[in-house]
Amino acid sequence: MASNDVLLVLSGAGRDEQWEIDLFQRIPGRLQVRWENIRNPDGSLRKLEEVDRSIFEDVTILFTYEPVPAEWIPKVRFVQLSSAGSDLWAKHSKFLDSSVKFATTTGSAAPQIAEWVIGAWIKSQHLFSAYEQCQKDCSWQPSLARQVEDSVGLRVGILGYGAIGRQVGSLCRALGMEVYAFTANERPTIESRAHRGFNIPGLGDKGGEIPSKWFHGKTKEAVNDFLSQGFDLLLISLPLTKLSEKLIGAEQFEILSKRRTFVVNVARGPIVDQDALIQALETGLIRGAALDVTDPEPLPAEHPLWKANNCMITPHVSWLSTHQIGRVKGILADNLVRLYKDEKLMNELSFESRTHHE
Amino acid sequence: MASNDVLLVLSGAGRDEQWEIDLFQRIPGRLQVRWENIRNPDGSLRKLEEVDRSIFEDVTILFTYEPVPAEWIPKVRFVQLSSAGSDLWAKHSKFLDSSVKFATTTGSAAPQIAEWVIGAWIKSQHLFSAYEQCQKDCSWQPSLARQVEDSVGLRVGILGYGAIGRQVGSLCRALGMEVYAFTANERPTIESRAHRGFNIPGLGDKGGEIPSKWFHGKTKEAVNDFLSQGFDLLLISLPLTKLSEKLIGAEQFEILSKRRTFVVNVARGPIVDQDALIQALETGLIRGAALDVTDPEPLPAEHPLWKANNCMITPHVSWLSTHQIGRVKGILADNLVRLYKDEKLMNELSFESRTHHE
Repeated sequence: MASNDVLLVLSGAGRDEQWEIDLFQRIPGRLQVRWENIRNPDGSLRKLEEVDRSIFEDVTILFTYEPVPAEWIPKVRFVQLSSAGSDLWAKHSKFLDSSVKFATTTGSAAPQIAEWVIGAWIKSQHLFSAYEQCQKDCSWQPSLARQVEDSVGLRVGILGYGAIGRQVGSLCRALGMEVYAFTANERPTIESRAHRGFNIPGLGDKGGEIPSKWFHGKTKEAVNDFLSQGFDLLLISLPLTKLSEKLIGAEQFEILSKRRTFVVNVARGPIVDQDALIQALETGLIRGAALDVTDPEPLPAEHPLWKANNCMITPHVSWLSTHQIGRVKGILADNLVRLYKDEKLMNELSFESRTHHE
Repeated sequence: MASNDVLLVLSGAGRDEQWEIDLFQRIPGRLQVRWENIRNPDGSLRKLEEVDRSIFEDVTILFTYEPVPAEWIPKVRFVQLSSAGSDLWAKHSKFLDSSVKFATTTGSAAPQIAEWVIGAWIKSQHLFSAYEQCQKDCSWQPSLARQVEDSVGLRVGILGYGAIGRQVGSLCRALGMEVYAFTANERPTIESRAHRGFNIPGLGDKGGEIPSKWFHGKTKEAVNDFLSQGFDLLLISLPLTKLSEKLIGAEQFEILSKRRTFVVNVARGPIVDQDALIQALETGLIRGAALDVTDPEPLPAEHPLWKANNCMITPHVSWLSTHQIGRVKGILADNLVRLYKDEKLMNELSFESRTHHE
């Protein structure tokens, strides 16, 4: 019964009354909605300890990014994460409790993250930074661009072919690139290649029809075989697990040196061995890199990665967009409707996937 | 008869013997090929006056970017331009001679120019310049990105829906944007919307199926009506003619201020009234601009456009790619084959289009 539920929304945006009105027309009864805007006036987010503890009382449904201590939410039965990843929750007792449902918002940020990826790729290939400097110098230097290579016929490897990977695949195909996909599990049939999570209509690669070759595996050998396919661009877009930690290190950069691959990480910082990355950049094994994630975050001011050669760094922001909150509220509302219909949730994390993190 | 023809290739790249061998297997007889590499060791191009005049003797087929004085090439019967535009030739007596065929390489540079356009758009929308500065300062500033807006549901207007416009349209659609197209002539039927020039297989919008609305006209009123559709992004990709000269001026920027359109010009500098553009940028009527073309070129170091607010400038290089020469040589070879088969050339400029430049 909805009337017994207390939904707490820990959000970086203000309460949306219209969203609540629309929601209440779709669900039976009324759930109590507590909307806590955790954004400070300076734009930063409040820490959980700074939030009034009383708002957690009797909460059964929680919308949050940051894990909330289990003892604050003893009655919780459904946690809607506002993120695509759930790695922060790996050891949380509610996460390891089969009676609590968890869902992510995987896919909601795919458009802006894919834009960031393609923007970083073009910025590097078309020497935008060098030209920005020329402009500052009021200097007309056409001959610089003679080394520019367009993307037609180039090859991209997408390590983790989820919502983000698929939208990048779609953009790469539109650029004329050949797309190779890597997934943990084999996708031998047409049905198995379909994307099952949240997907914005018309975007991405819902049917899995874009890659010309599929690779799979859960071993370094499988990944190394994939990396030796000769990629101009490598996208890292898989979850952080024990298996993916430091997955891309010195050995992998050596493999990538064949085509001096441009390496993009929008997943999680620890997937890349940063010392090895800096080495690969400084010695020119790879042509460049673009990182929206680092290890640690924030990256300390004195960290050498900031100054590594041909490396673009942004502070874990590729998911940010003014459209994001609308998409996330849409997923939350849809999942509440599904919850009361006792249907499988959108982007639901099965108990098995939660407990068998490798 | 091919054997009477002398082909002079004025190219920025060296002779390609394999290209000639392949060509000779496709055409009857042998034409004499003179390949003149006009690239200086420093990367600049030699001026025509510095080229040995004797190579022009008896030339009947010419491949060139720069116009060659008519008196140097009295016997010419086919000029293959290495550019998409033919505005440099508007008053050339050979251009106004119906017995001489002209063709462009329109479409060959569409991929790289479209990459440049989308790269400039994403660079602006995702605040890449601000983040490059943060990186130089080793400063982690996620809150900056809270103003980023992804492209899903935004609207792009493409003024001139040729090969470049169509490839930008394809990329914009993949980004989730709504595409409106403008052409000089009406395209009321499915057939009329097809692209007839050179098109790289799989790229662009050969069938003209991407735009959700089509506009047309040859008057300022028609263009103003198009511009008032509320564009987030406006691409200027039409030829420079008397009609398009200073087409985008103060009045048009006023119209575009409704949605603070980001304005991209990859066509020709004089299509935009630069004083009005600077004014629009400085007063914030538009959110920004990206120009690969200016008026004049090179843009003098003291020109105020270099320092205008939120304006990216590159020195007419968006067409440059290491893949370009291969595509252009492909068009030249195909057109020689067509010439000897007496077929219509790819990208042929009809005599009517040459003499009725408006």
